[in-house]
Amino acid sequence: MMLGASHDSSVRDLVSVVPAGGVGSRLWPLSRPDRPKFLIDLLGTGTTLIQDTIARLTPLSEAVYVVTGERHADAVAAQLPDLPAERIVAEPSPRDSMAAIALAAALIEERMGERIMGSFAADHVIPEPQAFRDTVRTAVEAARTGRVVTIGIEPTAPSTAFGYIRAGAPLADAPGSFAVEAFTEKPDAETAERFIAEGGSSWNAGMFVVSTSVLLGHLARLQPTLEAGVREIAAAWDGPSRAEVLARVWPTLTRIAIDHAIAEPVAAEGGVAMVPGPFAWHDVGDFASLAELLTPGEDGAIRIGRDAAVSLVDSAGALIVGGSKRVAVVGIPDAVVVETDEAILVTRREVAQRVKDVSFQV
Amino acid sequence: MMLGASHDSSVRDLVSVVPAGGVGSRLWPLSRPDRPKFLIDLLGTGTTLIQDTIARLTPLSEAVYVVTGERHADAVAAQLPDLPAERIVAEPSPRDSMAAIALAAALIEERMGERIMGSFAADHVIPEPQAFRDTVRTAVEAARTGRVVTIGIEPTAPSTAFGYIRAGAPLADAPGSFAVEAFTEKPDAETAERFIAEGGSSWNAGMFVVSTSVLLGHLARLQPTLEAGVREIAAAWDGPSRAEVLARVWPTLTRIAIDHAIAEPVAAEGGVAMVPGPFAWHDVGDFASLAELLTPGEDGAIRIGRDAAVSLVDSAGALIVGGSKRVAVVGIPDAVVVETDEAILVTRREVAQRVKDVSFQV
Repeated sequence: MMLGASHDSSVRDLVSVVPAGGVGSRLWPLSRPDRPKFLIDLLGTGTTLIQDTIARLTPLSEAVYVVTGERHADAVAAQLPDLPAERIVAEPSPRDSMAAIALAAALIEERMGERIMGSFAADHVIPEPQAFRDTVRTAVEAARTGRVVTIGIEPTAPSTAFGYIRAGAPLADAPGSFAVEAFTEKPDAETAERFIAEGGSSWNAGMFVVSTSVLLGHLARLQPTLEAGVREIAAAWDGPSRAEVLARVWPTLTRIAIDHAIAEPVAAEGGVAMVPGPFAWHDVGDFASLAELLTPGEDGAIRIGRDAAVSLVDSAGALIVGGSKRVAVVGIPDAVVVETDEAILVTRREVAQRVKDVSFQV
Repeated sequence: MMLGASHDSSVRDLVSVVPAGGVGSRLWPLSRPDRPKFLIDLLGTGTTLIQDTIARLTPLSEAVYVVTGERHADAVAAQLPDLPAERIVAEPSPRDSMAAIALAAALIEERMGERIMGSFAADHVIPEPQAFRDTVRTAVEAARTGRVVTIGIEPTAPSTAFGYIRAGAPLADAPGSFAVEAFTEKPDAETAERFIAEGGSSWNAGMFVVSTSVLLGHLARLQPTLEAGVREIAAAWDGPSRAEVLARVWPTLTRIAIDHAIAEPVAAEGGVAMVPGPFAWHDVGDFASLAELLTPGEDGAIRIGRDAAVSLVDSAGALIVGGSKRVAVVGIPDAVVVETDEAILVTRREVAQRVKDVSFQV
């Protein structure tokens, strides 16, 4: 429908920003504080989630930036050897998503001038990258109208794990886009059922496409000290005083999520558009959702990243992850067995979200 | 009640024989065909079951013999450095318990003359060795009357895992002993309940105390070719033709259990006595019965032979065996997790008997 949507070429002035944070504590022991979810080969494909994310964005983008914690900057650089070092932005400490994205926006403006910026998490699974890129192209055109544009994922179930986006009328000046009436936090089960029954709601995957000047303009109105802070840091970033300015200013920045700082208030003003994302998308939060992405073998076992033998007795649907030892599961259908060099996790898919309560993750 | 029962000295003419066979396939991966149950430190005490068995019998016995498969003779010798090598009798192939015990009896008569022989399995757990030895002393005195004497274990539950011994009247000429009316095979649950309700039945732990000449005399009547065969092998054992005679005769010996060959027919003739064994006794058949022997820690986990950390989330009663990796169990009460150098087993106590069906034990 849009020019450029029919072929897979890059968008001249799109700079993709990938916030890479969060441990993924329900995926322990694959993920750990020193080896967060975005750095692991979660699907056993041979590439990590951040590598997949960058590969998905590179064909589309003039440049790609990663914003991550100082602790993980070296590992990110090692996993992304083709990414220029100056495009890895290391935060001295976590200050929530608004500071991370705003710093990237300010740094891009400093270095490149105004651009369309797309922000996409480092640890989501999108099996059809071309369909994803087509949607982003539509979103970039919508962003040229001065709106904050989000991509709404078509819900496949009344999930309570995601926030929802309620769409209104199609936007005449942004083909393929809809007005956003409201963002909703993660709902309870009853509300989620109602959203799905009523239609018009999509999942909020935290994807935002917006001109850097529009984003920083909203921020200057709504969170002025945050905007001034990231402008000051960005101005010093490529000079001799980066460390001094970062140490002085970064700890003072307001801790707030981009949803609360920008998306919700600007939606209330009518300044947010939504482009539907008709592609499969997975925020693989635990071993149960991981198992659902994969196909069992003839023996009923789902294997990820393992060559050693598996024997199941009355244990169909078991997920066996990693490891070099033989694994036998007896009488635990939908078992989850994860072996790393350091640890063994045993659980069941139904209760896999409780893995976050294991005492010795840190 | 018997002379000698009040102190823990050896019995002048008792030779203990320990048949060491059976894999213990429900205890995989601790036990394996090349590392059977009797060779493992099942309770994590630092000693193996056969070491415990020999230590229990040595203070009581003039000599101790082990009968085991050729495949395991070296491992038995390595675990029992104080046992003279000529007392390890290696069977070329398994030919059931009667051949093993009869060969030992014939060899003892060849070497030592007539003795009282006690046969005790290599892989049973008896936490109170002195109480056990007191019972054996009583059984030895009963055996001097010319009877085959068995030790009957006081049942603690209507188990269907063991055969039962039905006792009759006390024997006037063998204090502490009772006539045996019959041996019963492993009963169904209803029959086991009835045995317990009626009283007078004890578990058959396969312990026999009998003069070598009485045993071989019964055998000469009831299984004459078997008796002739073991006599021929025993006569050649310590000479140059052992290998030739073994290779020729051993494969021809009747495969039969001592219960069917001797205990049942001789009981029917009134020639078997039973001495009650008032000590705790465990034939640890699977991980469920192993867990029952041990006390959980403060966190609800039962640990055997492991120093690495364990974290349980909603998994009280979990049994964690061996291994050097951290183990977390989430949402599987009474889980069983066994880690060896080669393998990981995950099951639940309730279904632990199905471990024998794991495909790659061999």
